[in-house]
Amino acid sequence: MALHKRVNPSSKVNNDTGFGTNASNYGGRFINRDGTFNMRKEGIPYWERFSIYHTMLNLPRWKFITVVVVFYFAINLVYTFIYLLIGIHQLQGMITNTLWGQFKETFYFSTQTFTTVGYGRINPVGDVANVVASIEAMSGFLSFAIATGLFYGRFSKPKSYLAFSDDALISPFHGKTGLMFRFASYKDNHILTNVDIKVTIGLQLLENGSDKPEYKYFDLHLERDRVDSLPMNWTVVHPIDDSSPLMGFTYDDMKAADVELYVLIRGFDDVYSNFVLQRTSYTYDEIIFNRKFVPMYRESDDGKTTILELHKLNQHIEVK
Amino acid sequence: MALHKRVNPSSKVNNDTGFGTNASNYGGRFINRDGTFNMRKEGIPYWERFSIYHTMLNLPRWKFITVVVVFYFAINLVYTFIYLLIGIHQLQGMITNTLWGQFKETFYFSTQTFTTVGYGRINPVGDVANVVASIEAMSGFLSFAIATGLFYGRFSKPKSYLAFSDDALISPFHGKTGLMFRFASYKDNHILTNVDIKVTIGLQLLENGSDKPEYKYFDLHLERDRVDSLPMNWTVVHPIDDSSPLMGFTYDDMKAADVELYVLIRGFDDVYSNFVLQRTSYTYDEIIFNRKFVPMYRESDDGKTTILELHKLNQHIEVK
Amino acid sequence: MALHKRVNPSSKVNNDTGFGTNASNYGGRFINRDGTFNMRKEGIPYWERFSIYHTMLNLPRWKFITVVVVFYFAINLVYTFIYLLIGIHQLQGMITNTLWGQFKETFYFSTQTFTTVGYGRINPVGDVANVVASIEAMSGFLSFAIATGLFYGRFSKPKSYLAFSDDALISPFHGKTGLMFRFASYKDNHILTNVDIKVTIGLQLLENGSDKPEYKYFDLHLERDRVDSLPMNWTVVHPIDDSSPLMGFTYDDMKAADVELYVLIRGFDDVYSNFVLQRTSYTYDEIIFNRKFVPMYRESDDGKTTILELHKLNQHIEVK
Amino acid sequence: MALHKRVNPSSKVNNDTGFGTNASNYGGRFINRDGTFNMRKEGIPYWERFSIYHTMLNLPRWKFITVVVVFYFAINLVYTFIYLLIGIHQLQGMITNTLWGQFKETFYFSTQTFTTVGYGRINPVGDVANVVASIEAMSGFLSFAIATGLFYGRFSKPKSYLAFSDDALISPFHGKTGLMFRFASYKDNHILTNVDIKVTIGLQLLENGSDKPEYKYFDLHLERDRVDSLPMNWTVVHPIDDSSPLMGFTYDDMKAADVELYVLIRGFDDVYSNFVLQRTSYTYDEIIFNRKFVPMYRESDDGKTTILELHKLNQHIEVK
Repeated sequence: MALHKRVNPSSKVNNDTGFGTNASNYGGRFINRDGTFNMRKEGIPYWERFSIYHTMLNLPRWKFITVVVVFYFAINLVYTFIYLLIGIHQLQGMITNTLWGQFKETFYFSTQTFTTVGYGRINPVGDVANVVASIEAMSGFLSFAIATGLFYGRFSKPKSYLAFSDDALISPFHGKTGLMFRFASYKDNHILTNVDIKVTIGLQLLENGSDKPEYKYFDLHLERDRVDSLPMNWTVVHPIDDSSPLMGFTYDDMKAADVELYVLIRGFDDVYSNFVLQRTSYTYDEIIFNRKFVPMYRESDDGKTTILELHKLNQHIEVK
Repeated sequence: MALHKRVNPSSKVNNDTGFGTNASNYGGRFINRDGTFNMRKEGIPYWERFSIYHTMLNLPRWKFITVVVVFYFAINLVYTFIYLLIGIHQLQGMITNTLWGQFKETFYFSTQTFTTVGYGRINPVGDVANVVASIEAMSGFLSFAIATGLFYGRFSKPKSYLAFSDDALISPFHGKTGLMFRFASYKDNHILTNVDIKVTIGLQLLENGSDKPEYKYFDLHLERDRVDSLPMNWTVVHPIDDSSPLMGFTYDDMKAADVELYVLIRGFDDVYSNFVLQRTSYTYDEIIFNRKFVPMYRESDDGKTTILELHKLNQHIEVK
Repeated sequence: MALHKRVNPSSKVNNDTGFGTNASNYGGRFINRDGTFNMRKEGIPYWERFSIYHTMLNLPRWKFITVVVVFYFAINLVYTFIYLLIGIHQLQGMITNTLWGQFKETFYFSTQTFTTVGYGRINPVGDVANVVASIEAMSGFLSFAIATGLFYGRFSKPKSYLAFSDDALISPFHGKTGLMFRFASYKDNHILTNVDIKVTIGLQLLENGSDKPEYKYFDLHLERDRVDSLPMNWTVVHPIDDSSPLMGFTYDDMKAADVELYVLIRGFDDVYSNFVLQRTSYTYDEIIFNRKFVPMYRESDDGKTTILELHKLNQHIEVK
Repeated sequence: MALHKRVNPSSKVNNDTGFGTNASNYGGRFINRDGTFNMRKEGIPYWERFSIYHTMLNLPRWKFITVVVVFYFAINLVYTFIYLLIGIHQLQGMITNTLWGQFKETFYFSTQTFTTVGYGRINPVGDVANVVASIEAMSGFLSFAIATGLFYGRFSKPKSYLAFSDDALISPFHGKTGLMFRFASYKDNHILTNVDIKVTIGLQLLENGSDKPEYKYFDLHLERDRVDSLPMNWTVVHPIDDSSPLMGFTYDDMKAADVELYVLIRGFDDVYSNFVLQRTSYTYDEIIFNRKFVPMYRESDDGKTTILELHKLNQHIEVK
């Protein structure tokens, strides 16, 4: 399904989105809510497309810790089997002589070597065990060097820490209507400076009687497309006026045109002294007509500070 | 209280500050002297708003060291209690047999494991103690990996190292008056390049006979808003001329309008090859009329170098 | 050999490439396919021109690991010889008494000291051995500090991860012809934003009947020289029209003029929040006439996502 | 001494250098050859002006290593004295019983604890010694965490790696003369991209019959003030034409005016994906009349690459 209606001819076309126009080659939305692109790559081996560092950086915290712990036990198991292969007699100082007991003691010795604790009660006397232990100690140290890099990489990774309203609204605006959504920085003491925003809309159209749907992209004019700093929330407003590609659109039109809003926000992060980007998107079924947002900040009780009410980010009421 | 007088109509309004206009929702000054914003966030759980890394990065040095040391002793106490729970017989090599002595020796063993010193006199022989020790050694190593990241993060965090005069002054300037404040980089060998500055003023106004005070924001025209580099101090001057929103303002007007100056300085830091930002603000009670700054640099005695006198940063004298 | 023909006079000359014009002083192509410059430096000592950090950062992964491992064994060999020079009697706890056995045990002791495992079975008793051991432990720790820095440097080094088509093509374009090549980001979840591209061409010319060939540089006008983001591939097109310096060029002309295209791509890397650059070049023998690229993306079978087919990057077919 | 002559009135004045104009307050040159500013700061305590990290980052390599080694021995001496104060009986496993021998063994024990080697032959048995050892191990680990940060900071510090000609020359240029100096990147595989340069000149003048010399600053117009990339050397040329403040200047004029050229170069470093700055300056006695630079690159013998001859950077010959 695609929209047959003609789009407002005074809209500002954007041919430089980096997306293609041939609708039949594309599947689903372009940009996911979390800002990633909805696409896969194929044709080269997985390990060439895969970046360990990037993956470890973006894992949720508990998964990251799990990977580290699992790796630690797995590599110690590997070394344990190597020592057992070499022969238990190359290690001295064990106190058990059952097989299971020796396995466990060898594993403990391995962890003591890998972490460089090296209590020394159990220690290698044979040549092969000594060489393996020296390699294990080095690999342990290097593993922790890598862990240090990963921890620091996770710490210092610039993130925007922006929360977006779940929906975009069509609300009254200066006597006409406007397309609105809002967002706010949700971390304490985390401010973006010189923030600018760009909103592009993608429409699937059947133009000039053609039966091959094509994507067209338009930049949406915004009431305000930059702010000096972002201590509070920001309600982004696209006035639906004569120059808007959405002029006269109903919900059904939006659905037919498979409307998707691409949002790109850029700002300078005071904490990390770095520029950060955040993408998100709204598709037609995330756009609600005839609602408006409620205010989300107030003066504190003592009148000395301002309070941003983040739980109201998604609250909107019907327009009477 | 708000100002009823009309502001100079040729002033340059700034609608993109990111601050709101509805004065009744706002409390106190917007920006604190140290450049942070005077606001709180609520409505989402504390731990979502809180960033450990960011907090640890911004602690004063002695607090940071204290946190590290307290953490070290606390986690060793935790492990000590775990070993005691497991049973003291799983550790060999202790030399005392009083309870208090065993507690202490277990604690020492724990620190030797956590730091991976591992003297080995005391060492684990039981299975549970061995497993706990291998976990402790790993957690110790990872803790120090995190500490490394925090130390490096603190080291390498770009900071502006700018000191500002405590007050802004209304001084004579080219036959009229000007609003002035000054600042300087106080670190040796620390230079900002391509520094630019933006000063915005916020006024609480009652316009057109309305009784609902509103904030209005104006960009202040500056005699000079950028310098190539900042080896010396810089006195920022806003000439109070026909285009100034402060034209004709008395101290009482400023108080009535709840005047606040927002200062934003940007520069390129030669040391870290990074852009840094510094904010500060002056409220009406930090603006002094009829004073002027004294010079704050001189030639060295041998005539071969220039000396910046940082202790004079806040010195000003009355205008006769 | 150089081109005698006059170049299209409406071409846009670029005098600021940073390359010289005196062709007789230059050898071979300027820029290699991988984006490095084809040049050597001489006249100052090697170690002043050489940067260990930079070299270690750019080694392939297996070479880097090899260097680390070889360094580890080499430095332990050095310390082993120092301990042997000092005299084996300064170490206690050895269990062999053949020379070869003592050498081996000393080497194991060295690795245990360097990695700070320190089992303690073998330990220094003599003064010189103790001092050397304390230096070795420090140097070991510092080596791993350096290794940590290198690992993190390798991890966090911004890279463009762009793959380019092997050849540039002369294809039909809007009724005329165009010079085309294409590229794509080949890492999963790796997107460049605000990508812009600059293509410059270098020609060796004999102008005004001179017999001294000179290099001239022209900026190539592109159908599109920036995109908002680069989730897909991008086919860069230089229309060969009236303003093109390549207007009317045959393969032989390109060869005679020793044509080289210099490509510079800049973008903002979402993952590292950093700007990245990528250079590449195409020489006349990498430009193929009368071919065109095949499309390289399709809709997934379930219609819900888009698939980029990286194995088709270099596929082109003859123009009928 | 200051210049009485009037400066070319069509020169482009630069009032935004960040330097003052009152000559009597300034001593010596503003910018040293290495790009640092010739100035001191006073009036706040040394430790507020001093930055350990910045200092350690900028030490020459051998000084840095020396500081690390000296710190290592010094802190171990401190701990040694603490253990001796506590009493030697709290450590077990020593093999000597002379005082000097015990001092030495305690020192060795300290290094084994600080580096976390912990052989364990000597180990603490008393409570105080145990507590001190646990603190020493922690401080050792943290010291190496800091060392890691410093090493990485030194590695990854963006540097321009530019070498400048020792002198600026007044050479023939397009039938008139020009002020010239040149520079080149001296590291292998180290390229700056989008390099731009700004040259400002400072003159000490006595204007309008005043007897109070003042500094005036002028931007020098350059034949070329940016290049796309800097693989080769770059000769910066200021044509001394009708718009030049140096029009008609002799060496004596330059001396009288205390001429100083401020050079600021900016570029994007491909290796570190970062912007770097480099400053330098030339004073009147580093400007030589009637000389010109010799070329400093050639084609390699096999004709396949270009060679930059860095030893010729300072070579110039007399103009006949």
